[in-house]
Amino acid sequence: MGSHLCEALVESGAGVRVMDNFSSGRVSNLAGIEDRLELFDGSVEDASMVKNACRGVDAVVHAAFPMSMRERSMETSVVVDYLAGLFNLLKEAIANHALFVFISSIAVYGDQKYVPVDENHPLEPVMLHGAMKLSGEFLCRALANSHGLKAIILRVADIYGPRNTRISVPVRFLINALQGVPLRVFGSGRQARTYTYVDDFVRAVLSALQTPSAAGMVLNIAGDQAISLYDLALLVKEVTGSDSQVILEENVAADDRRLVIDGTLAKNVLKLGRSVTIREGLIKMRDWLLQNPDFYFGGVPS
Amino acid sequence: MGSHLCEALVESGAGVRVMDNFSSGRVSNLAGIEDRLELFDGSVEDASMVKNACRGVDAVVHAAFPMSMRERSMETSVVVDYLAGLFNLLKEAIANHALFVFISSIAVYGDQKYVPVDENHPLEPVMLHGAMKLSGEFLCRALANSHGLKAIILRVADIYGPRNTRISVPVRFLINALQGVPLRVFGSGRQARTYTYVDDFVRAVLSALQTPSAAGMVLNIAGDQAISLYDLALLVKEVTGSDSQVILEENVAADDRRLVIDGTLAKNVLKLGRSVTIREGLIKMRDWLLQNPDFYFGGVPS
Repeated sequence: MGSHLCEALVESGAGVRVMDNFSSGRVSNLAGIEDRLELFDGSVEDASMVKNACRGVDAVVHAAFPMSMRERSMETSVVVDYLAGLFNLLKEAIANHALFVFISSIAVYGDQKYVPVDENHPLEPVMLHGAMKLSGEFLCRALANSHGLKAIILRVADIYGPRNTRISVPVRFLINALQGVPLRVFGSGRQARTYTYVDDFVRAVLSALQTPSAAGMVLNIAGDQAISLYDLALLVKEVTGSDSQVILEENVAADDRRLVIDGTLAKNVLKLGRSVTIREGLIKMRDWLLQNPDFYFGGVPS
Repeated sequence: MGSHLCEALVESGAGVRVMDNFSSGRVSNLAGIEDRLELFDGSVEDASMVKNACRGVDAVVHAAFPMSMRERSMETSVVVDYLAGLFNLLKEAIANHALFVFISSIAVYGDQKYVPVDENHPLEPVMLHGAMKLSGEFLCRALANSHGLKAIILRVADIYGPRNTRISVPVRFLINALQGVPLRVFGSGRQARTYTYVDDFVRAVLSALQTPSAAGMVLNIAGDQAISLYDLALLVKEVTGSDSQVILEENVAADDRRLVIDGTLAKNVLKLGRSVTIREGLIKMRDWLLQNPDFYFGGVPS
């Protein structure tokens, strides 16, 4: 996500500073733009580096999140470092009167009470990951009130795209299909996700950066279509022309939620236009995988 | 709050372990019961001490909170230490299958959208203090879902009583009245608070510890009556027989909220009976101040 955003920001002519500890990202993801941005190789817990990185900026985008927490780590230090880093950045955003774009997650909603899930849906995260994102939101909102922070909160749906560190289901299916091995769907296959192509995420952040009037708002960022995992598997087979079997592993416990996310508010506020369709996104991702067969462990045959 | 709870727990016959770094409390507050409990003199950030303190316990009450955050410190370390300590305790509660009573605050509600404020009121903390308490709540709830934590969340209203480190308004008024100096009310005087005597807080926690069926619940803990600050000043004059003037400082900016808290749910679930009235609480506090004239800086003439 970060490298795609950097590319778009550099293209737009913005002066860009990147701070990353490269715990999950790769510096090679910035290939081609590394001379056009300022890189701070370090962790956001490092308050003095954060201070330097934020000096004089107009805006801060906070997308840092420890991969290990997403993978259900229960290390106290992971929780603590996340919050320390966020708080350091929030304070520097306040000090520099910078717009703060906080990358939150639809994980803050937890189990759906109704679909599609709009921004008024109850907040009941069921995993640590969502609880920490929600804590971050409330930190932003409290500091907006008490310290004049200008913050826009973006709750992003499941993002997929090139260079994703975490292999999400669309990417796993594409790799399986290109390798000619079965696409395994766990659970009923009827569980749904609003998979969102990374370009739509980038477009939303760029627009948020140009919409300071959205400060104080919370916006879902999601593609226009939700899809069931079974239908996704069939679509992947189609766009790859693969003979891979689709196997429903109904006895395997799976997250059976229908995560249908309503991104209408962001569409209107950020003037986003239509999103990349799932078919279009899968085709882009397919082509990238074919051009970068060695990116993921295990490789993809070209 | 902690020492009162310890007294009641010891009286009830429970085995009690206390962990405190005495950054705001005083070890002398445990005078008379220190031989009947096990003291861990340290900070909840110390994971190994937390592990020892929690080994084999049936329940954990988390009331630790950095006074400096309440006083609007923006030190990253304060925010971080609070969360680290809470997370350490949550993990040990899970490991020991212990009931977890999380002391939250009505600060999670922020500005009142309606009164009285029940547990369904929107959550929009306006200060860092409330945002951190709310983060703690969501941590409890996520771990309840993902790791089987049994947690009861108590959102306590403004507590006052003997040995309060923070001199709340009822105590300040009482000290002023006993010293014969004016009682200054900032703002309109019509702002209201649901002042809650510490005994009611203690009773609620003891009952929560005996009501594991309340796990998963969020309960307001508050006295039965709200009172405006002006009326509070008059009542303090009455119970002390003081000639002190009441001065309305209407030009001084003040927190003008009417914090009228609905504690009905906790009354029912925890079978609490009627609370200490404000008059009763003020009389108890008056008597304690007269018996302990040196407790607060500046002293109170007997």
